[in-house]
Order: sequence, then C-alpha cells, then structure tokens
Amino acid sequence: MNKIGVLTSGGDSPSMNAAIRSVTRYAIYKGLTVEGIQRGYEGLIHGESLALNRRSVGGIIHRGGTHLRTSRSEEFMTKEGRLKGYNWLVQNHIDALVVIGGNGSMKGAEKLSEMGLPTVTIPGTIDNDMAGTQYTLGYDTAVNTVLEAVNRIRDTAVSHDRVAIIEVMGRHAGFIALESGLSCGAEIVLIPEKKMSMEEVSHHLEASHKQWKKNSIIITAEGAVSGAEVLQYMKAHHPEMNPSLTVLGYLQRGGAPSARDAKMASLFGQKAVEYLLSGGTGAVVGLIHDNIVATPYEEAGQFQFGIDENEYELVHALGM
Amino acid sequence: MNKIGVLTSGGDSPSMNAAIRSVTRYAIYKGLTVEGIQRGYEGLIHGESLALNRRSVGGIIHRGGTHLRTSRSEEFMTKEGRLKGYNWLVQNHIDALVVIGGNGSMKGAEKLSEMGLPTVTIPGTIDNDMAGTQYTLGYDTAVNTVLEAVNRIRDTAVSHDRVAIIEVMGRHAGFIALESGLSCGAEIVLIPEKKMSMEEVSHHLEASHKQWKKNSIIITAEGAVSGAEVLQYMKAHHPEMNPSLTVLGYLQRGGAPSARDAKMASLFGQKAVEYLLSGGTGAVVGLIHDNIVATPYEEAGQFQFGIDENEYELVHALGM
Amino acid sequence: MNKIGVLTSGGDSPSMNAAIRSVTRYAIYKGLTVEGIQRGYEGLIHGESLALNRRSVGGIIHRGGTHLRTSRSEEFMTKEGRLKGYNWLVQNHIDALVVIGGNGSMKGAEKLSEMGLPTVTIPGTIDNDMAGTQYTLGYDTAVNTVLEAVNRIRDTAVSHDRVAIIEVMGRHAGFIALESGLSCGAEIVLIPEKKMSMEEVSHHLEASHKQWKKNSIIITAEGAVSGAEVLQYMKAHHPEMNPSLTVLGYLQRGGAPSARDAKMASLFGQKAVEYLLSGGTGAVVGLIHDNIVATPYEEAGQFQFGIDENEYELVHALGM
Amino acid sequence: MNKIGVLTSGGDSPSMNAAIRSVTRYAIYKGLTVEGIQRGYEGLIHGESLALNRRSVGGIIHRGGTHLRTSRSEEFMTKEGRLKGYNWLVQNHIDALVVIGGNGSMKGAEKLSEMGLPTVTIPGTIDNDMAGTQYTLGYDTAVNTVLEAVNRIRDTAVSHDRVAIIEVMGRHAGFIALESGLSCGAEIVLIPEKKMSMEEVSHHLEASHKQWKKNSIIITAEGAVSGAEVLQYMKAHHPEMNPSLTVLGYLQRGGAPSARDAKMASLFGQKAVEYLLSGGTGAVVGLIHDNIVATPYEEAGQFQFGIDENEYELVHALGM
Repeated sequence: MNKIGVLTSGGDSPSMNAAIRSVTRYAIYKGLTVEGIQRGYEGLIHGESLALNRRSVGGIIHRGGTHLRTSRSEEFMTKEGRLKGYNWLVQNHIDALVVIGGNGSMKGAEKLSEMGLPTVTIPGTIDNDMAGTQYTLGYDTAVNTVLEAVNRIRDTAVSHDRVAIIEVMGRHAGFIALESGLSCGAEIVLIPEKKMSMEEVSHHLEASHKQWKKNSIIITAEGAVSGAEVLQYMKAHHPEMNPSLTVLGYLQRGGAPSARDAKMASLFGQKAVEYLLSGGTGAVVGLIHDNIVATPYEEAGQFQFGIDENEYELVHALGM
Repeated sequence: MNKIGVLTSGGDSPSMNAAIRSVTRYAIYKGLTVEGIQRGYEGLIHGESLALNRRSVGGIIHRGGTHLRTSRSEEFMTKEGRLKGYNWLVQNHIDALVVIGGNGSMKGAEKLSEMGLPTVTIPGTIDNDMAGTQYTLGYDTAVNTVLEAVNRIRDTAVSHDRVAIIEVMGRHAGFIALESGLSCGAEIVLIPEKKMSMEEVSHHLEASHKQWKKNSIIITAEGAVSGAEVLQYMKAHHPEMNPSLTVLGYLQRGGAPSARDAKMASLFGQKAVEYLLSGGTGAVVGLIHDNIVATPYEEAGQFQFGIDENEYELVHALGM
Repeated sequence: MNKIGVLTSGGDSPSMNAAIRSVTRYAIYKGLTVEGIQRGYEGLIHGESLALNRRSVGGIIHRGGTHLRTSRSEEFMTKEGRLKGYNWLVQNHIDALVVIGGNGSMKGAEKLSEMGLPTVTIPGTIDNDMAGTQYTLGYDTAVNTVLEAVNRIRDTAVSHDRVAIIEVMGRHAGFIALESGLSCGAEIVLIPEKKMSMEEVSHHLEASHKQWKKNSIIITAEGAVSGAEVLQYMKAHHPEMNPSLTVLGYLQRGGAPSARDAKMASLFGQKAVEYLLSGGTGAVVGLIHDNIVATPYEEAGQFQFGIDENEYELVHALGM
Repeated sequence: MNKIGVLTSGGDSPSMNAAIRSVTRYAIYKGLTVEGIQRGYEGLIHGESLALNRRSVGGIIHRGGTHLRTSRSEEFMTKEGRLKGYNWLVQNHIDALVVIGGNGSMKGAEKLSEMGLPTVTIPGTIDNDMAGTQYTLGYDTAVNTVLEAVNRIRDTAVSHDRVAIIEVMGRHAGFIALESGLSCGAEIVLIPEKKMSMEEVSHHLEASHKQWKKNSIIITAEGAVSGAEVLQYMKAHHPEMNPSLTVLGYLQRGGAPSARDAKMASLFGQKAVEYLLSGGTGAVVGLIHDNIVATPYEEAGQFQFGIDENEYELVHALGM
C-alpha cells in the first residue's frame, strides 16, 4: 500500500473536514501518499482530484462543510459508472479509498471493495442512522445547532404563551429529534420509531397546561409527522395555545464542528488508515460500546443501533 | 408624577427585557415607583400587573423575549377596550405609561395619550420600520442571528455547489434582508422597497456563475417574494444550480440581545423616563442622526427612514 | 421513602440546573416530594431550603450555573458541621439526599451515608476527573467553550504568524486540555498525566515551522505547566515565533449546557432517583462503558478512568 | 489611476477581511486592478504581494483575522524603511494604497501620502479610538465577544455569590469596557477617561450589597486599572464578596465579524476606493454623524470622539 484516495460523498456534515485532515495527515505520518478526490463519486468518475499534503489540510479542522466538496452521483449507481471510477483509481495507482459519507455512500464503497479495490467508510451524516456505529460524524454538531435554535425560539414562545412546533431533520431515524428534545426540555417529541397520534399530543398538552404550563415545545422529525401537519392540527384543535412553526432545514447541516465531532473525526480517520494498512479490504469504521472499530461491510448489519426507549419515555416524564 | 406603568406589546424582540430594566431602575433612581403590566394591552384591560423594584428586574438584561410577556389585543383596538385600560390605569394611580413595542403598539399608546394619559413608546421590533427612529430594539440581534444562520447554510451551499435561498422576516421593510445580505456577502437581496424580477435574478446569477462562482446566496424578505416562489422559479429555470430553501422564521425573534441592542434599550429606557418627568404627554423615543430624542406622536411621521439605496446597490456590486 | 433533598456543591458546572430539574421532576413523577437545599453543604448546615415542585424547575434546563446556588463549606468538613447537616435533614423528614458536585462534594455525601442517611452523588464538574464515571456534567460544555475560544484566538495567531499559548482548567487531569487540543488541531498539548519538557515543545515546534507552519497552538492544563511559564520560555527561546498567552479562567465554567451535558444530566438525575427508590444507601451515578449505573461509594475507586493515551499521541501526530 | 494596493497593518481586528473584499471588488467594479500586500508595512518593504481578483477575496467576508496577514514593522518607522516601501510601490506601478489598521498604521499611511503616493486609511482596530471616525472596524464584534464572555462568567458569579472582575482591552480608551458594561448590566466600569478610586468602588458595591445584591460584575479596561490590582484590593477589603478575575485577552481580537462590522467594512471599502478615484491624496475614511466620509489626514484631529459621559453615568445608575 503506497497511495490512498479520500473523498466525501452525499449530504455534507460538520467535521467532514476534520476527517479529511486526519486521514491525510495520519496516512502521511505512516508513510503513505494521499490523493483527494473532489465532488464525491461524481468527481471520481470524472477524475477530479488533487494531491494532498500536510499543508493542504491545514486550517480546515474547524470549518463546516467539506473542502473536497460533495455530490449525489446517479451515474455511480450504475455498473458502468462504478467501473469508470474503479478504472480511474487503478490507473492512478490508488491502492485504497476512504469514503466519508452516509448510507448511500457506504453502499458505493462496498461495491468498489467487491470489485477488488479496498475501501473503508467513515460514517458522516447528521442523522446518526448507520450500521456499524453508534455515532456518525456531524450528529453532535447538528443536535447542538437545533438546541441553540430551540433556545432562541423558546424566548418567543414563553413571551407569547405559545406552543412552538419545530421540525428537525431525520427521515428514517429520530436521533436528532430525541436528543435535542431531551436536552432542551421539550414537552413532546415525535419520531419515526414511535407512533404518537395527534390526539395523544393534544391530550398530553392539555394535561400539562391544566396544571401550570402556558407554553410548550413540540419537536418533530421530518420522517414522523411534518411540522406543517402538526401546525394545522394544533390550529384547528388548540387555537388558544397559539401554535407556531419553524422548520430548521439546512441550518442543521452546517457550522463549525463541535468538540465531540472534531475529536471523533480525528479518531475515525486514524482508524480508517490503520485498517487499510493492516490489509483490510472493506469495512465501516465506527464507535461501538466505547471502542473505535472497523467492521467488515458484510457484518455491519449486525450492529444496527436504534434510539434509546428510556430516553423517549424520559422526555415525556420530565416534560410534564 | 409619582408612579409609571410599563408594558411590552405585539411581537417580542430581543432587548425588551433590557428596556424594562432600564425604565424601572431609572424611574426608581429618579424617585418614582413602577408598576409592570403583563401581557401587553390585553393584561392592561384585565388588570394583570405587579409592582417592580430594582430586584424584580435583576438578571434579565441578557434574556431574550419579555419577562412581562406580551400579546396582540383585539379588544384594545376597540374604544371600549381602550377605555377599560385607561380606567384601570387611573384607578391604580398610574400617572404615565411606557409602551415597548412596534407600530401597532405605538398606535395604542397614542390613543391613550389622546385620552389624557401621558404615554411614551420605546420602539421594539426586529423589523426596524418605525417612524421617529432610525433604530428599533431587536433589529441588531435579529440581523446577527440571520448572519450566523447564513454562515452555517453557506457551508452546505459551498460543499454542494448550490444556490441557497434564505427567507427572512420583513413584511413591509427590507432592513433585515439588506443588512444581513450586505454583511454575509449575498449575491442577491430581494426587498419590498425595490423591484427585481426573477429574470433579473436569473441573469445576475448566470453572469456570476459564468465567471467563476459555483454557489450563491439569495436573501429574500418575506414581503418581497416568498422563498417558496424563488425556489420554484430556480428549480424550473436553473436546476443545475441545485437550489435549496431555508425559511428562518421565529428563530429571528429570540436570543440574548446583542451589545448594541442592550445598550440602545438602556438609553431608550432612560430617555422615556426623562421625557415623562419633563412633562411630556405623548411621544416616541428614537435614534435620529446620532441623538436619542423623544418625538411627539403627531410629528413622528416626518421622521420616517427608509433603506439606504447605496447599500442595496453595493450588495450587488460586491456580490458579483 | 417520601421526601428527598437535592443540593449543588463545590464549583458550579454547566447542566447542574438540568440535573436539578431531572431529579425534581422524576422524583415527583414517582410520587416523592422534593426539598431544594441552597448554597450546598453550607446552606444545609444553616437550613436554607425551599420546597420544589414541577414549576419551580421550569425554564432552567438551559441556564448555566445553579439556581440552588453553591459554595465550598469548611464547616461541613468538620464532624460537628456534618452532624448539624444530618440533624437538619432528619428533623425535616428528608429521607435521602442527592448531591450534585465534584470529588469534595462526593466525600461529604459519603460521610452522610455512613451516618445513616442515604445519599447519591451526581458527578458535576467540568474537569471529568471523578471515580465511578467516564463522564462528569459540564465537561462537554467546557470543552466546547474552550474550542470556540481557541477558534477565535487562532484568527489572530494566523494573521500575526504567532504561537498562541492557551491555559485551560485541569489541576489534576488533562481531559479538557486533551479533548480541546485534539478537536481544535493544536500542535502541542501539555497535561499533568504526561511529562513533556519545554525542550521537547521547542523541538516539536521548530520541526513543524521548518516545514511550513507559521503559527501554532499550545494548550496547557493549569496543572501541567502554567501558561505564564510557557510564555516566558517561548519569549526567551523563540521570540521569532511571536508567542502570546490567553488564560481562559472562569469563562470555562459558565454558559448554557451543550446538548450532551443536558441529556446526561437528565439521565443521571433519573438514575439517582431510581437508585434511592430501589433502597440504595450510598452511591455515585456515572457513565461506564455506555451504561448509566450507580456504583456504591466504596467500589467507585475501582472505576477510575484516565485520559486516552492514543488521543495524546494522535494530537501530536496530526499537529505536525 | 489604474492600480491600487491594499494592506492590513498592526493588530488584526474582525472584518478586516470584509474590508479587503470590499476594496478589491469595488475597485475592480470601477475598472481598477488590485495588488494585495502581505504582512503590512513589513511585507511592503520586502515586496511580498499578490494580484487580487474577485475570486481571491471570495469566501473570506465572514472570517476573523486578515488573509493578507499583518505585522508591526519597526523598519517602516524609519525614513529608510518608508523609502523602500515607497519605491516598491512606484516600481510596481501602484498608484495608490489602501491601509487597513489603527493609529500607528494611519501614521505610516500619512507619511507615504506626504512622499507623494496617495493613501487612504480604513480604521481597523477593536479599540474604537481613532481620529476622523466614530467607528472602527472590529469594535462591535469585540464588544459582543466580551458580552458573551461576561454572560458566561455571570452564571458562575451568581451561583457563588461572587464579585466577578473582568479585564478587557483598551489601553487609552474605555469604549470596549463602557459599551460591554452598559450592555451586560455591570455594576462598575473602570475606564481610563474617568477616575474612580478603589474606595469608591468599594463604597458602591457595599451599598448595593446592603440592599439585595449578592453578586456583581466589575469591568475594567486594561488602561484604567489592571484586573490583578482590582482583585488584590477586593481580596484584601472584601473577601466576603468572593472576588474572582478573568482577563479576556486575545479572545477579543478574533472571531467572525458581527453584522455591523461586516457592513461597515463594506461601506468603508467602497468609500476608500471612491476617494482615491476622485483624486484624493490622503485621508482617513470614517463614520461621522451617520455619514461615511473621507477626512484629510491633517483635519482628522478635529474629529476626535470620546466616550459618552451619559453612558458612563447610566451604567452606575442602573447597576445599583
């Protein structure tokens, strides 16, 4: 192994730059050379790349987004597209590839491994919903961004005796909604993993407003119920609660990484390089029960971590 | 003059608490007593109030929202409603009232003055669109909140070669959009005061993308074109620019006040008390050409300040 | 068990309020009543307390500091002092006490347990250096506060080709220095657990400046070498590196809690109440290998977690 | 006029990058070419420069520090040094120079103007203490950075019933101390412009603690009394107030610019270019009574703005 490639793919997430820096510098520290591929698999297919040295990745650890840029490549989903990418890697003497991205990106990396080119995936998505790890890069920053936003919105909700509905990201997983809900003290959290009818929401709020509350926070993951739907229901059934909606959207994907994200990115980057140096041919790096490990793609499915049921119950017990 | 009342009304805005603190402590410093009226004119009508001393307003200068809470009162828009409020003030020996709020709140205060009860309005709205002042409390904080949000969204826009459309508050005035656009380096700013067709937007972006740009920021005030409309147009005409939308919404109304807001709130509060002590019967406090002044309601309309045309031109000259 | 007490003791740390809220509301949820004791053991000795209900702990989850206030009590370090506290608890029918604080506070709680009053300690200190847990409340917020400060200071360091020395808290443990150093990309981290001579520091910086670096960041824990000492050495031996010093001090102890801190506080609070309800007589709550557990005081010493050696090596490998 | 140079000099301050961007893009917009000189006058003497186009200044408006880097040049303080710089400018066909910096930098620019090369100074220093303007770039960001730090430190002060002493920058001027003190609600502000003895400080605090206060904030400008001195006095005379000190230091100089700073930088940059295009030979750009103007160096001394006495009185009236 002499030369490795690194790319970021799919939706960007905070600390991808920290991961690029770690992969690059740790690889160089171990005697390898590094090629940075731009715009994800799309750039791989079109051969957009540049050599990376220690300096190229200086001054980026604290920047949001990804300096290698990223994309969603439809061509790479085809056999022909992947073959183009594979050939480019071989022709450029790249012995292995580090892919930083989410589930779709990992699938692409797995295919390349099957074609014979060792790859390792570093989980990078704010949604925290990947197999083989309890932690994905960007998650902690996104949750803190939501928390700060909720803290701002609460000021207004309290001043107006208002129910504030806040829609956060999470199409298939409620991690962001649940952790931000628990940490901001939301009254209600709606997530794809648990069904809660609008009648139950209504009942819960009525009970707490009967006691003493005059304002409340409902956090809904986009994959559970849309914020617009919650707003409509509340307006129809509880106009006296003065409901309002904020959809946080892309705000959640940017920003300087939190300490935890930048640290984990550094550790994941190191592990990815070590895995390749040890002769690994295809794995996802992850955090499992406090250990940073590389799990072969075919076994990753056995390590799928869901939300914590107790946390879900606790939000509603404390929110009353 | 022995006793004054203070209330916050309409939409809340950052540094309303700093203004309450300043009015209260400065009035006490000048030998007056202070009654805090809760929930704006609605609370006035229903006699919801509490005596305020130095301590009651301790620890609130840096809090968003308003500790006196606020509301939009339909009843106070009727003659009967105002009479109830007026009578309550008289019965409670309140000699004058300080109202912190926006245009609607100022109208209510003016009516009370006409009924014989001296009032003074402290401009409090993030929109910066009131007569009698170049500055309204909350404006600076709101613009900085937008700026921080745009800085986050830009990370994602740059990583994806994307045009990010951001909708900010401003139904009738483009101040927030213009100042945040100038300070974040937006390519395009859309405001109610200036017409720019979607064809012009398109033309401007094409020109700059032809040169070297791969990502851009469009900031639109809700009162100019809705973000949804801009998104739809861009998707139809420039799918290659990968447009995305974020509507910042209520996020803009909360948060700890910026230094400028907390300072101006302190100065406005002082001026309000001094105006009443000097025998004034009805005025709006404001910043006009560097001076903090109290302008009688009937003259305030002569001091209506619009956006700065040069700033608007400059955004687009520098954004290319 | 009918009634529990809760207090915060020693240095304050972010999310102590979130822990107070969780203990209070979860206890009430389980049918208990709660007494809040003010100013730590000092207040306990002097009987300063108030009944807490759900409402008393509303609106505090996102506030820094502790609403129950805190202190370092010398009197409680004496047998007589502790007896006074114990007697007050018994006389007020308080069946168990939840103490939120650091190592000194835990010792006090252990003594009370030995006297016959069940206690449970929730680890609250920014230093992350307590037995029985891998995580202490306030740690994540403190590290992020340091990270933000370093990001600011770096702007100046880069502009001036300067070596920025930053002293952070950590008398006996280097957790804050190490995690902030890894996450900000520091060139050098100095911690009490590892000896690095000033000559080695000098050598490391020379090597990296010989390559391409023109600015660097040194983070030192107060318990390793004082920032003033590092500055003096650098000024004497490397005036050309333009060294400057910032001592972050009390800045690190305040602020709204991060999402992780507020979440952990909620979970620790729940565990503390459950432990007491299950008949426990003395333990420290903690996070051990992903599980939230209550470890009897006498066994806590077996669970002492130090810094991660690999992280220490990695900082310096990546910082080159 | 065909080609202008631009440099940043002296201590860096937030929004210097926004000013570089504005000068560069506005000059290009007006048909000029632009040369960026690195490391201030030191780089000028040694001919360190690069051509700037629209793209070179993309993505920097929101970055702290200065991308052109800066320095304090002793050589440029000599006649020989300045001649070297002057000659380099002439040889490189640079017709005019824009200097972004503080008082020392302005003096250098004035000398170059006297030698025959037109210069214009854009005031860039966090201290807000330059002739010819009421506003210097970086001031608003610095004050907000102080405010955020104080808000954090206050959490700890309140929890411990403590007097928090905070030393801020300001060797000759108390602007930062005064504005941050007014906006954070400090009890005491110590500034070079006004004498307040430690006995008066003590008296003031005693009076307010006798009423109800248990914690206080003292903000001292480094040029008034050092924080260490205040701490020593307080420890000796008021140990019961539990005094603590934080010296904010370099923290105040970095960070992304506030909206106001980035806006003013854009406007100052435009004015600087327009002044040179109109044939001006030497002036400082500034904000004077709401207008952005260019004042010839020799007249700038007539426009020296001091702190506002009323604000100083108001801090102490409201802080009681």
